[in-house]
Amino acid sequence: MNRLGSKAAAVVLLSGGLDSATAAAWARREGYRLAALSLDYGQRHRVELDCARRTAANLGITDHVVLPIDLSVFGGSALTDTGIPVPKGRAIDAMATGIPSTYVPARNTIFLSLALAMAETRQAEAIVLGINAVDYSGYPDCRPEYLDAFRAVATLATKAGVEGRPLEILAPLVALTKEEIIRLGLALDVDYGSTSSCYDPTPVGHPCGQCDSCRLRAAGFAAAGAADPRLTSG
Amino acid sequence: MNRLGSKAAAVVLLSGGLDSATAAAWARREGYRLAALSLDYGQRHRVELDCARRTAANLGITDHVVLPIDLSVFGGSALTDTGIPVPKGRAIDAMATGIPSTYVPARNTIFLSLALAMAETRQAEAIVLGINAVDYSGYPDCRPEYLDAFRAVATLATKAGVEGRPLEILAPLVALTKEEIIRLGLALDVDYGSTSSCYDPTPVGHPCGQCDSCRLRAAGFAAAGAADPRLTSG
Repeated sequence: MNRLGSKAAAVVLLSGGLDSATAAAWARREGYRLAALSLDYGQRHRVELDCARRTAANLGITDHVVLPIDLSVFGGSALTDTGIPVPKGRAIDAMATGIPSTYVPARNTIFLSLALAMAETRQAEAIVLGINAVDYSGYPDCRPEYLDAFRAVATLATKAGVEGRPLEILAPLVALTKEEIIRLGLALDVDYGSTSSCYDPTPVGHPCGQCDSCRLRAAGFAAAGAADPRLTSG
Repeated sequence: MNRLGSKAAAVVLLSGGLDSATAAAWARREGYRLAALSLDYGQRHRVELDCARRTAANLGITDHVVLPIDLSVFGGSALTDTGIPVPKGRAIDAMATGIPSTYVPARNTIFLSLALAMAETRQAEAIVLGINAVDYSGYPDCRPEYLDAFRAVATLATKAGVEGRPLEILAPLVALTKEEIIRLGLALDVDYGSTSSCYDPTPVGHPCGQCDSCRLRAAGFAAAGAADPRLTSG
């Protein structure tokens, strides 16, 4: 409840993946009234946008903006340039050393800045995102110190911040392992069959099973002692 | 010259207005090899994009990306929502009190984050933008403390920053008055006839003469003792 006695609003960045679905379910449990933002940014794994829509529907989110912004014009990432191969078959221990070709330049900063705009127009009190820094893929913009820096920008950049109502930037999964994220999501009844993590799915959206993201997901489900419904529901 | 003996690259945010054209000309004089980014964000004054193209051509910039991103989906600004009137006839002294309806939520953060992505893919050493905090329109994201916060994000967010090559965020006009900006631009041979400042131009692109931006521009040219070529070239 906020000071007016109504539910506080929050904008959640919903990618269609496992982490952001879990973060959204967490925020709903915390009592936030959610709006969602997904970005159609030229990613080769566009199937995740269908998953974002299903996840939003599962969570009862009706204010869901899917915004087209073609980051492939800048190039430089295996996720937006089909000429750059997605790494396959890497050991999980090797993923956190160096920044892989799936890194999309400035992606989280772009997504957070767009969430900031949406949050301002919804009078939201928080932005929620599913980044995590433990079982991650070596992206610089997934670290807690990065989030702290963005919090400062959000406060100085916006009408709300200037008027003394700084936005919260909530990353509830930032210190969790993939196993812990999945355990949390299962406890919150997240339908992981409606999420997609693969960077390089088949044309009909089946996961490749070999990219970093597929391997982290599989290891997380195995550690949590659960079956991944995505692999059975297709 | 950078450490490799070649010209350092910089990405300039080119709106089509007077300030960014001046900032770009300044950066060229400083020796940067320039690429330019303009955003087609649903602004009612889209004529400024034609001006951005003319200014880029005048400055010999061949790497010019005009990226569509429809910020009108979020609403909340007179610049993207024709249902919200653009303030007209305000005294200049009144402009810096409060945040006007022409404020676009999180606009500079969105534009800087996109420039950050472009800078990373161009191996640029700097982002250049024309914001200024003296004769400005009360926007929170035009202040020096905001820029400092974004610098910290840029360093933490990017591959270059992580690898010890933080980007410069250069705002050469931030402490200049509109008069000083125009004097600088005239000394740098900026063609102000190829720039447009009006928030609410006529369908053929003529300035309204009464919005905050037109009034600041007119006062700046008057103080600099120069004629505005935009008013004669149409």
